Amino acid sequence: MFDIGKIAIIGGGSWATAIAKIVVKYTHHLGWYMRRDDRIADFKRLGHNPAYLTSVHFNIEELFMSSDINKIVDAYQTLVFVTPSPYLKNHLNKLKTDLHDKFIITAIKGIVPNENLVCSEYFHQVYDVPNDHLAVIGGPSHAEEVALERLSYLTIGCSDVEKAQAFSDILSSDFIKTKTSSDVIGIEYASVLKNVYAIAAGICSGLKYGDNFQAVLMSNAVQEMSRFLTAIHPIERSVYDSVYLGDLLVTGYSNFSRNRTFGTMIGKGYSVKSAQIEMEMIAEGYFGTKCMKEINRHMHVNMPILDAIYNILYERINPEIEIKLLTDSFR
Amino acid sequence: MFDIGKIAIIGGGSWATAIAKIVVKYTHHLGWYMRRDDRIADFKRLGHNPAYLTSVHFNIEELFMSSDINKIVDAYQTLVFVTPSPYLKNHLNKLKTDLHDKFIITAIKGIVPNENLVCSEYFHQVYDVPNDHLAVIGGPSHAEEVALERLSYLTIGCSDVEKAQAFSDILSSDFIKTKTSSDVIGIEYASVLKNVYAIAAGICSGLKYGDNFQAVLMSNAVQEMSRFLTAIHPIERSVYDSVYLGDLLVTGYSNFSRNRTFGTMIGKGYSVKSAQIEMEMIAEGYFGTKCMKEINRHMHVNMPILDAIYNILYERINPEIEIKLLTDSFR
Repeated sequence: MFDIGKIAIIGGGSWATAIAKIVVKYTHHLGWYMRRDDRIADFKRLGHNPAYLTSVHFNIEELFMSSDINKIVDAYQTLVFVTPSPYLKNHLNKLKTDLHDKFIITAIKGIVPNENLVCSEYFHQVYDVPNDHLAVIGGPSHAEEVALERLSYLTIGCSDVEKAQAFSDILSSDFIKTKTSSDVIGIEYASVLKNVYAIAAGICSGLKYGDNFQAVLMSNAVQEMSRFLTAIHPIERSVYDSVYLGDLLVTGYSNFSRNRTFGTMIGKGYSVKSAQIEMEMIAEGYFGTKCMKEINRHMHVNMPILDAIYNILYERINPEIEIKLLTDSFR
Repeated sequence: MFDIGKIAIIGGGSWATAIAKIVVKYTHHLGWYMRRDDRIADFKRLGHNPAYLTSVHFNIEELFMSSDINKIVDAYQTLVFVTPSPYLKNHLNKLKTDLHDKFIITAIKGIVPNENLVCSEYFHQVYDVPNDHLAVIGGPSHAEEVALERLSYLTIGCSDVEKAQAFSDILSSDFIKTKTSSDVIGIEYASVLKNVYAIAAGICSGLKYGDNFQAVLMSNAVQEMSRFLTAIHPIERSVYDSVYLGDLLVTGYSNFSRNRTFGTMIGKGYSVKSAQIEMEMIAEGYFGTKCMKEINRHMHVNMPILDAIYNILYERINPEIEIKLLTDSFR
């Protein structure tokens, strides 16, 4: 049986904290890389992440925290990457250690900028990590609800089913149900696309389209997602599965989604810049939209929602006009 | 080309009123059967339905209203039935006129009680209406949003595509987009099942399950719906289409859905009786659950959500226990 070894988390945000909570409950030891020493100091003092999911308390004795990524990567066999995708490269650039014998699990819902690769492809191509050492964690999963121990379902994707099962066994608990999948690439792309569609849902909401239309938008979004996944990675999959459709729904229907909120501001007439300033953060779907548009230039999949959101965010087309055109393409 | 003739609405609720608004905009004349004379008098005096969608004003000159169903059925060729399903039989029992040469369109989201037939099957079997004279209007469509002229998509199902198209042309406008389908039975069953799943969504919400779980529930619901539709009417269909998935989502995610509200009260611990008294109305999904359970006794489709809701509503099984069991069947 596959020995998963010692597990470390790379990243200090809310989803990283939620995964840390789930893992350490089982392993009672966890490595944790965070970028900022002051955050680590505060974390140790308070017994919880000072910035995210502050209600989740940790036994500090069970954590080895460091702002030195090399220390963590050297000492741990399984690495769970949960940084925002735009920053992944920066973190990895500091690495002096080889990654190719590590078990790499990505929980990053984004694409590596400029490379136009999902994270598992990036680890494979740039760091020579073999495909059967690459896994992904898929939702639907608001970190906040995991923190509250509300029942959530996670899917672990890995081409090596035994490895997927080994990590899945660690995650499952009273409030986390898990299943395994071999569709790493499909799960990663789905999690990028759902952010694009959450922005679309927000834009339409900002433009005062109602619930009837949102339901049509989501139905068309899952069809568009299905077409793209079939084109980029043509294996047999059911996009009704919760890791695809469910992840789309939890993001598209949630008022807590940053991507949806960002879209709502755009729909209400904010510029991209001012929406980003107002939110004090960048919605991942903003980058995802550009990356997906570029990837699809070679794929030629019919993706009217992606195209419309790209036109609104990057070509400064009036959202009202663009969405009106989009509605004509819907069924 | 098929001549749709003069159109009448049978029923006086909110969805009936929304459809009347859409139709009369195009036809400038409409027959309208309502059960209560006092309501008709108030309607004529006020220029709007006194009880539902009161913001929608009608030109009374364009309406021929009557509480005598025979008068309406005699004078009109196309009849749109929009009564609650439990009352359909009562209305039809008053009929002295033949229906078999009428064009019958049902917009009833329910099953005829005791018969365990969807409405088109009932009209066919009991009133000898030929299948190509039977059509259905499918959502996703909150009547309230149609009243507000918020963009909505309707699907008209009829085995005779020309007839579906003729009615579809009448409905379509700036704020209503239409498409046609030949899947009458599938659309009707989907609209019954979505009410069952909306009750399920409400129960889970009342039990404090969160958004992560709701997304998993909806993903499993569309899979269950797909299995049932394939069994009862095995034609090629995509349940991602908005008339199936979209209709499920708009009901399952809406706080305005009576079915969802009913479910929420059950989840919070109300008995079925007290929830019904509190709501001053009966959620259609309550009857739909029983009918679907009975229909599925012969079909043997794997329907864990339907079974759980039936057990809660009719077998008085504790919702907490029943939903806990259901969660184990989910993927």
